[in-house]
Amino acid sequence: MANFVFLLKNLLVVSAAVNIGLVWKNMSDEINGKVASSSLRNCEKKLHCHGCLSSNGGQDETAQVSRKQVLLSSTTSFSRDDDDEPDGGDVDDDGAVINLDQTGEETTVVTSSWQFMSYFSDLNNICWFLEPAFASAVTRLHEVVGNAITEGRHIVVGTGSSQLYHAAIYALSPPDGLEPMNVVSAVPFYSSYDVMTDYLKSGVHKWAGDAYKFDKQKPYIEVVTSPNNPDGSIREAVVNGDQGSLIYDLAYYWPQYTPISTPAEYDIMLFTTSKCTGHAGIRIGWALVKDREIAKKMTKYIEINTIGVSKDSQIRAAKILEAVSGSVDDGNNETFFDYSYELMAKRWKELREAVNHTELFSLPEFPVKTCSFSGRTFGQLPAFAWLKFNGKVDDCESFLRDHKIITRGGERFGASKKYVRASMMSREKEFRLFTKRLSEIK
Amino acid sequence: MANFVFLLKNLLVVSAAVNIGLVWKNMSDEINGKVASSSLRNCEKKLHCHGCLSSNGGQDETAQVSRKQVLLSSTTSFSRDDDDEPDGGDVDDDGAVINLDQTGEETTVVTSSWQFMSYFSDLNNICWFLEPAFASAVTRLHEVVGNAITEGRHIVVGTGSSQLYHAAIYALSPPDGLEPMNVVSAVPFYSSYDVMTDYLKSGVHKWAGDAYKFDKQKPYIEVVTSPNNPDGSIREAVVNGDQGSLIYDLAYYWPQYTPISTPAEYDIMLFTTSKCTGHAGIRIGWALVKDREIAKKMTKYIEINTIGVSKDSQIRAAKILEAVSGSVDDGNNETFFDYSYELMAKRWKELREAVNHTELFSLPEFPVKTCSFSGRTFGQLPAFAWLKFNGKVDDCESFLRDHKIITRGGERFGASKKYVRASMMSREKEFRLFTKRLSEIK
Repeated sequence: MANFVFLLKNLLVVSAAVNIGLVWKNMSDEINGKVASSSLRNCEKKLHCHGCLSSNGGQDETAQVSRKQVLLSSTTSFSRDDDDEPDGGDVDDDGAVINLDQTGEETTVVTSSWQFMSYFSDLNNICWFLEPAFASAVTRLHEVVGNAITEGRHIVVGTGSSQLYHAAIYALSPPDGLEPMNVVSAVPFYSSYDVMTDYLKSGVHKWAGDAYKFDKQKPYIEVVTSPNNPDGSIREAVVNGDQGSLIYDLAYYWPQYTPISTPAEYDIMLFTTSKCTGHAGIRIGWALVKDREIAKKMTKYIEINTIGVSKDSQIRAAKILEAVSGSVDDGNNETFFDYSYELMAKRWKELREAVNHTELFSLPEFPVKTCSFSGRTFGQLPAFAWLKFNGKVDDCESFLRDHKIITRGGERFGASKKYVRASMMSREKEFRLFTKRLSEIK
Repeated sequence: MANFVFLLKNLLVVSAAVNIGLVWKNMSDEINGKVASSSLRNCEKKLHCHGCLSSNGGQDETAQVSRKQVLLSSTTSFSRDDDDEPDGGDVDDDGAVINLDQTGEETTVVTSSWQFMSYFSDLNNICWFLEPAFASAVTRLHEVVGNAITEGRHIVVGTGSSQLYHAAIYALSPPDGLEPMNVVSAVPFYSSYDVMTDYLKSGVHKWAGDAYKFDKQKPYIEVVTSPNNPDGSIREAVVNGDQGSLIYDLAYYWPQYTPISTPAEYDIMLFTTSKCTGHAGIRIGWALVKDREIAKKMTKYIEINTIGVSKDSQIRAAKILEAVSGSVDDGNNETFFDYSYELMAKRWKELREAVNHTELFSLPEFPVKTCSFSGRTFGQLPAFAWLKFNGKVDDCESFLRDHKIITRGGERFGASKKYVRASMMSREKEFRLFTKRLSEIK
């Protein structure tokens, strides 16, 4: 018994010692753990906030908070309207912001001071300022979405598709022509084509107006925008003359706006991040160009104009496009295009209801088609609404302005003043005000 | 005794139970701790390497390793020479890289997907796509260096100073003139001005050649580059007519290239990160514009041309310029400009030795002046060497090409073929080969 008690005492002492040791260890680990967590949080903060040189007042902060808001592409306006009225509208929108949580870190770009310093990106490429990572991202995205053929095409990157428009009409125009090359587009056409073509009174190309009225015996460049800006329709070339070249502006040929029918396969196709993902401030567009010599001339234009295109923007655009492709390939989550489609569909439903309520306006009707990308069957959901006024007033833009709705008059697009273009891409609050005011018009 | 044994047993059981609990807790914490450390390491990796989408082959990696190498500004070339010979030379815009260790993280930019999406930066500014952070950085840098007056000036940002050149000649030309506005510059002038002015056969402006030979009775725009490209000289306007406007291209008016005499105070002054810090791929330039209407028209040009300028590039440029200013304000370390000056001085010494050795060439001599920024007294250290061949051969460019040195012939600058422009900005290995081969020419 004495031995047993001795044993118990010893075991208790040993056990107590082990207790003390384990308690001590636990206390130390807790302190270290807090430090690690804190570092992790700081690191994450750096990752997401270090470069926050936002200068948009509260806009970027709003965007940060509204992480579930859908990305809408930004519209463009050459004449900035300063009116505070909700425009529903003509002006560019700061855009609502997509930030599907799962893409947050995948699309974050960290750039050090020594990176991307050179003028040159890839001297083996015709477009020597094209970043290979961006080229890969573009190719992948088109493959994933199936909206354009990239094989056998040269990619030319531009500071927005605007610069690529300038580059394309330059490249397609003979340098020593007796007269400037005619540039046409079918009414209603994008309201900036004329000024973009003629602002320098170029002897190389000139704006020749409505493609429907063009004399097809003359040489020409026809710009086909499809889906069209402003009316959202699917377009084909209309001149069909023997001396013509075509530029297809496919800025909106993405599955949130339109069913994808077939991969586009034109000789010159323009795209832009401004409309694909809404990243307008990044100033990135790309052209898929079949003819090598045309690609070289477009490259030369951009060389003379701006000696290339921002590498910073190309790198970030690459990450964003890769994330969009990734959201499709992932298969498990709602894709970027799904989310965007749902928002566009919702907005168009609201707008049609508002228009039906007022009975003074009408909207285009679009044929319903099946999208090869999503499998959905739907009609166009354009970024702009081509509103027609059915009342007696001829100047729809002024009429709507009196009702505190800012739009852009149809005459800017070569059409009648009874039409206006209204943006579908404003912030949620503004869009609701737009549809509300529209529905209340008697 | 029985009670005591009972107590010992119970205490032992409790102690054992506590030990089991503590051991269990320790095991769990260890697992979590490993995850946290791993996350921290991953996070840190992301912070520094996440955006490494370098596409320059080994160049950016070389730059990363050579962190102490000095930043040299990149040169520009519209016709890319593919020759593998060390050009000493005409081309090469890969530049060497500055990365003073202390600026490494200060200049790192982290950008998330939702940032900088809008077209607009600051609608209260004439230049509505100018990022306020970039404007602040520009203002601060000019104040720190003392090389230009910013007060009372509007800042217009461009996709490189090339775009600002286009914008300036557009803005200074009457839109409805009976004839295109003449654009002149004094020989030897920057070899791209002519093609930049005339590539679109504009009816708004046209290249009218050498300012020395211009009829001052006519209206004109004179472009004054100072320090001059190609010969490094300090320039003033030469036409001095009554109907003229001036554009001062001050790309090289920084203390690594020239003594700063006074803060430049011209009506239109152009600068670029390409030459200030060597960040050419970023495509950022800025103009300091006195006249509000001119600033508006320049902004309008850029709006029509590219609907603004990359925000990504502006934000990174802002960080870089702030770091440069910081290196001056810091006071304790060698500044960015000190380091760059030492390299330029060393290279010019080597070049002059090589030229003296061969006796076939001569270089400009520059008056020695005191720099108000650094206090140093020195002659120009231009980014280009304006070599003159004193031998019998008239075509210096061809002669040097036979000796495996690529340069750009003087006729491209409106001067004689006995002159060539050679770059002082190539990588160290190439520059050494250039001076070696030059010194060996008999």
